[in-house]
Amino acid sequence: MGEVQTARLIDGTAIAAEIRAAAIPAVQAFTNAAGRPPGLGIVLVGENPASEVYVRNKVKAGADAGLWVDLQRLPAGATLDELLRLVDMLNRSERHDGILVQSPLPDAMGRGASQRVFDAIDPDKDVDGFHPVNVGKLVQGRAHLKPCTPSGIIEMLDRSGIEIGGRHAVVIGRSEIVGKPMAMLLLQRDATVTVCHSKTPGLPSVAARGDILVAAIGRPGFVTREFVKAGATVIDVGTTPVRDRATVERLFAEGSARREAFAKRGSIVVGDVHPSVADVAGALTPVPGGVGPLTIALLLKNTLAAAEARRR
Amino acid sequence: MGEVQTARLIDGTAIAAEIRAAAIPAVQAFTNAAGRPPGLGIVLVGENPASEVYVRNKVKAGADAGLWVDLQRLPAGATLDELLRLVDMLNRSERHDGILVQSPLPDAMGRGASQRVFDAIDPDKDVDGFHPVNVGKLVQGRAHLKPCTPSGIIEMLDRSGIEIGGRHAVVIGRSEIVGKPMAMLLLQRDATVTVCHSKTPGLPSVAARGDILVAAIGRPGFVTREFVKAGATVIDVGTTPVRDRATVERLFAEGSARREAFAKRGSIVVGDVHPSVADVAGALTPVPGGVGPLTIALLLKNTLAAAEARRR
Repeated sequence: MGEVQTARLIDGTAIAAEIRAAAIPAVQAFTNAAGRPPGLGIVLVGENPASEVYVRNKVKAGADAGLWVDLQRLPAGATLDELLRLVDMLNRSERHDGILVQSPLPDAMGRGASQRVFDAIDPDKDVDGFHPVNVGKLVQGRAHLKPCTPSGIIEMLDRSGIEIGGRHAVVIGRSEIVGKPMAMLLLQRDATVTVCHSKTPGLPSVAARGDILVAAIGRPGFVTREFVKAGATVIDVGTTPVRDRATVERLFAEGSARREAFAKRGSIVVGDVHPSVADVAGALTPVPGGVGPLTIALLLKNTLAAAEARRR
Repeated sequence: MGEVQTARLIDGTAIAAEIRAAAIPAVQAFTNAAGRPPGLGIVLVGENPASEVYVRNKVKAGADAGLWVDLQRLPAGATLDELLRLVDMLNRSERHDGILVQSPLPDAMGRGASQRVFDAIDPDKDVDGFHPVNVGKLVQGRAHLKPCTPSGIIEMLDRSGIEIGGRHAVVIGRSEIVGKPMAMLLLQRDATVTVCHSKTPGLPSVAARGDILVAAIGRPGFVTREFVKAGATVIDVGTTPVRDRATVERLFAEGSARREAFAKRGSIVVGDVHPSVADVAGALTPVPGGVGPLTIALLLKNTLAAAEARRR
């Protein structure tokens, strides 16, 4: 011990570019055969600034890959019924192969609104993989459309030469969007899987059993060195916008690129993993430029897969 | 160490009787209001001896609780299409609130037959909870009909005063029927959950981290003392028929009740947990008389719940 190792950074931007590049010939083949490109409908309700950024990135990446991306906006004051009518219209549309409704929805729509909307999306167009029938098929190891973030992480591990089978994977966080489907996908790949969360006693020592550690809790810098087994692969799913100077100064060293970005923009996106983990981990995904680009690349893959399945 | 403790035996038969007794007034209320009892259709294909026993127990328990149980038999040579037609008939029947197709199906029906049949059952009548939409809702914490064995185990822990929240639960086995839904239910109850399996290296020491250990692998006596943390609660889901004298003699002491039962019948059902675990565990479910009766009690509860939901 006492020896400082520097984790290999897993370049999510480069891996995502590989995936997108590999998808382009298939997108073109579909377009030639169908006489139209694969179509993705993205619904954005209101003006959440983080959602604006995510949606802009999805629209751009889709268009760059040759998809037809149809951004449908509803005002912040839209009702759930209006949103459900829009989803119904997209379900019935010939040109929309995939449908994505950006979360979160405005609070005024009520607590169960997201689930009602996900339930309403045609499972064959559900490129987020949130419809219960797609969740069930994921558990059963036969999902056609899998949630983009966890399946992007699997792709990332595979393309980085990190073995999954026989390893102990620890997932911190049990959300429907990341934690639970991540656990299922790792299990299907023969990892031993532990899911822990805010109610786990001794969380750092449980996490430190992981050969692969996935942090998906949305707490900037929460996962410190003591959570990490030496040499482990650490996947940081967190993307919390931080506007508070004290937090940035606590997490990042003076003169670091992150501090400079903060000085310039007054806000940066921060992951769940503390920068000092780089001294312990064997491999690590950065934020930004880690999991985020993979999520978008997998959205394109899902849209293409949905389009191809609908033509069959 | 060195001190021998004797695990408290969790009496599944008694707990199941409590659950059934509590259900009877609701069954009667339904019957009075609907003018007919809740109806359960059980489909049995072929003559698998273990299935015959399970089905007989289900029919008897259902009838004792006041359900109408309709056992539909198909010959071993029935085709998948014939079975699917029968399921379709039960789906459309007014009197059948729940439908259960006993596994396993004859091999001649092909590899994907079970899943095709589970997919065909009306999710509102799916008292086994195996339809993908019910699996998905289970993951999302909003299932109406949950798989009977894992939800029976949760009931058993609750009624035995064994805390789940904040504990480390280890599930050995990752089947669709027990392992995976068990992990999801334990997670929803705030346990930290590890799922391990045949590809887990160092399985005994991983299992020995569990405050609650669920063994669901179908290997008689596989879980020995070294798998068990002192004082842990051990849930034995295994029910493997054993006809081999050497196995019985290896597992059970001379003069024990299990040896006598074997001498009398030439076959006994054996769990996954080795008898010596009783010296280490804090609480333990026996086989038989542990999880099995709970599974049946939960089947009755699910049938009643399905019947009530269909009347709403």
